[in-house]
Amino acid sequence: MAGSQLSSELPPLDALLKRLREEKPLVQCITNFVSMDIMANTLLAIGASPAMVHCAEEAADFQKIASALLVNVGTLSPQWVAGMEAAIGAANKLKKPWVLDPVAAGATPFRTETIVKLAKMRPCVIRGNASEIMALAGAAGATRGVDSTAESEEALALGKQLSLDLGAVVAISGKDDYVINGNSMLKVSNGHPMLQRITASGCAVTALIAAFASLAPNDLHMATAYALGIFGVAAEIAVKKGGEAGPASLRTHLIDTLYTFTEAEMESYNVSICITEPEQ
Amino acid sequence: MAGSQLSSELPPLDALLKRLREEKPLVQCITNFVSMDIMANTLLAIGASPAMVHCAEEAADFQKIASALLVNVGTLSPQWVAGMEAAIGAANKLKKPWVLDPVAAGATPFRTETIVKLAKMRPCVIRGNASEIMALAGAAGATRGVDSTAESEEALALGKQLSLDLGAVVAISGKDDYVINGNSMLKVSNGHPMLQRITASGCAVTALIAAFASLAPNDLHMATAYALGIFGVAAEIAVKKGGEAGPASLRTHLIDTLYTFTEAEMESYNVSICITEPEQ
Amino acid sequence: MAGSQLSSELPPLDALLKRLREEKPLVQCITNFVSMDIMANTLLAIGASPAMVHCAEEAADFQKIASALLVNVGTLSPQWVAGMEAAIGAANKLKKPWVLDPVAAGATPFRTETIVKLAKMRPCVIRGNASEIMALAGAAGATRGVDSTAESEEALALGKQLSLDLGAVVAISGKDDYVINGNSMLKVSNGHPMLQRITASGCAVTALIAAFASLAPNDLHMATAYALGIFGVAAEIAVKKGGEAGPASLRTHLIDTLYTFTEAEMESYNVSICITEPEQ
Repeated sequence: MAGSQLSSELPPLDALLKRLREEKPLVQCITNFVSMDIMANTLLAIGASPAMVHCAEEAADFQKIASALLVNVGTLSPQWVAGMEAAIGAANKLKKPWVLDPVAAGATPFRTETIVKLAKMRPCVIRGNASEIMALAGAAGATRGVDSTAESEEALALGKQLSLDLGAVVAISGKDDYVINGNSMLKVSNGHPMLQRITASGCAVTALIAAFASLAPNDLHMATAYALGIFGVAAEIAVKKGGEAGPASLRTHLIDTLYTFTEAEMESYNVSICITEPEQ
Repeated sequence: MAGSQLSSELPPLDALLKRLREEKPLVQCITNFVSMDIMANTLLAIGASPAMVHCAEEAADFQKIASALLVNVGTLSPQWVAGMEAAIGAANKLKKPWVLDPVAAGATPFRTETIVKLAKMRPCVIRGNASEIMALAGAAGATRGVDSTAESEEALALGKQLSLDLGAVVAISGKDDYVINGNSMLKVSNGHPMLQRITASGCAVTALIAAFASLAPNDLHMATAYALGIFGVAAEIAVKKGGEAGPASLRTHLIDTLYTFTEAEMESYNVSICITEPEQ
Repeated sequence: MAGSQLSSELPPLDALLKRLREEKPLVQCITNFVSMDIMANTLLAIGASPAMVHCAEEAADFQKIASALLVNVGTLSPQWVAGMEAAIGAANKLKKPWVLDPVAAGATPFRTETIVKLAKMRPCVIRGNASEIMALAGAAGATRGVDSTAESEEALALGKQLSLDLGAVVAISGKDDYVINGNSMLKVSNGHPMLQRITASGCAVTALIAAFASLAPNDLHMATAYALGIFGVAAEIAVKKGGEAGPASLRTHLIDTLYTFTEAEMESYNVSICITEPEQ
């Protein structure tokens, strides 16, 4: 990284968390079958409202009453892609934020082509792990001048290019989460390795990003970092509450903690959101 | 409400709960993707047997070995509607009770039209929240002579009209649950507000209604109230067992409590099933 | 049973469990909607990697990067069968092991015909309960010379015939699990009756079989017995940890236990894998 500095410009968390609980944004989720239970429960626990509405016959209409759209390609099929495209078209027309989760980008040609097609439909945020972001960036034609041996650094450079090319915030999840908005980057250093043992926990956090994006359409960069920070801090608290017993206990405590989450807990855990500059 | 009185005609609970555990009714569930895990586990915990069988190629055939049918339109698509119609046709032909959960009625034209079409196929019970029942009743052409500003009262009047028009028991879930059978109404005052933070808990209770309906086809009104009462009381017990920690803990204790549920627990919690008359 | 003897030929458990955690086999799961959450979490907890990829447009391509394939017919539809056939074709071509879970075989003609068709596509392991195995064996034309009044014994004889006819390991789950490989049979006597109250716990164990099968393609018989043994022993430990409270608590402790599972725990619980000979 070229540089790193703590930002003094962060709006207070409760401006977003309190508003989420008051406004209860309705997030239309077109998501994979594995994730539906934990995603809906994540949104409900924190105070948002989920709606899994996917088919082409109603996906666009539903955007009229929704606050945001989450598109996750996990258990892909052509019928569902038709619904995704219809919903995305409506979201763009109605100026509702929509967020893309490019699950397993690169795994098959059908999947990669579909993700590239969706990524070009102007998502406001894309969140994936390093390999997903790299696969998407590569397939979408992003190139970078300086090769890197470290995968995470390569992902950052490709993520930056993807962000610039698509005009979207790009979040790369991992041990640390990086949230890239063109030349600006936020780093969120929360969470717990055991989260990777809970299926669809990444999918759930992308839905949380969609919920916060609907509250801060003019500051998607910060809203994305907040969603990642809250989920990560909640996971840390959940581990201490008894989640260290294993991934199923962690999941229970995580959902419970999102329900009771307070700004005080956020502060006490010292979320390290800092402004850094990705290498050129 | 015009009046309210405690009924002295209630059959003892264990007649139904004991029979459910002995007969293990097989409930065919055509339901949304979000609800499948909690619905199946709810039925298994109390002692019934779930089967998620939805496609048009086998949905009707499966009714031959099922005790009841649950149709929930949550994650709707035309392919699934074909399966629903096939299964409903078989249920009606074989005189098996079938129960409708009109999730998000009113949200989109496709959804509302589908729900109205299904509602006219003679469900024996319909369960929804106030806005779903009102949307269905309105779309199905129900009208009422006296306007009401209170949504719950308006829902009761429309629910009564819907019950009379369709010849079905109509259950309206909320802080209190109302179970309307034409001019007769039961009120169930159990449950806990945190249930709304558990995705598909309402869907699960509708499946429980289907299970009890199969045991008491000649007293669907009471069977519906029992299902709502057992679920609500179990939730109250679950909160005391540790469910107050949050919605994921509540869910765990709720399923556990349904497994161990006894009539003694039901009595100790004083379910307020009372006969009332909806306003004319 | 004609005879029973303890085998002295069993390879040590950790050879497989340790390798699973090191190699993290990627199991492509084409499975029913009810099972997806618990199946993915079971695989993640023990240390394998799940991927739910089902549609015909990518199911075959995904086998190229997968270690094994699990096909479960629970929530069947023609579209999904097309994906299953594509994936199975690829698995066979690429010599990846694939495992079949014939959920509710015999329930409808469409289901039984589909299962028979898939069973003839050379699965390396088939796991079901006694009635599923009997329905499959009967529909697939297996016959037996000696009638038996005991269902379990009849299932064993039909299972043996099925194993011989298809050249597959056949596992029959129940109070005891029997794993049949032609004329050889293993018996696994672990588990807990409350597992039947957790939806899709049987589906999850079949996915675990697929994971172990990928590690021991030349000893599928033993790998299948190990998967059943680990899951059963973990359930016994989970009951003691607090799972006796009910099926939802048991599920939580079961997943947690798979995460922390050690060979020492396996030995302390004395898994009774023994070689027996099914009756002729």
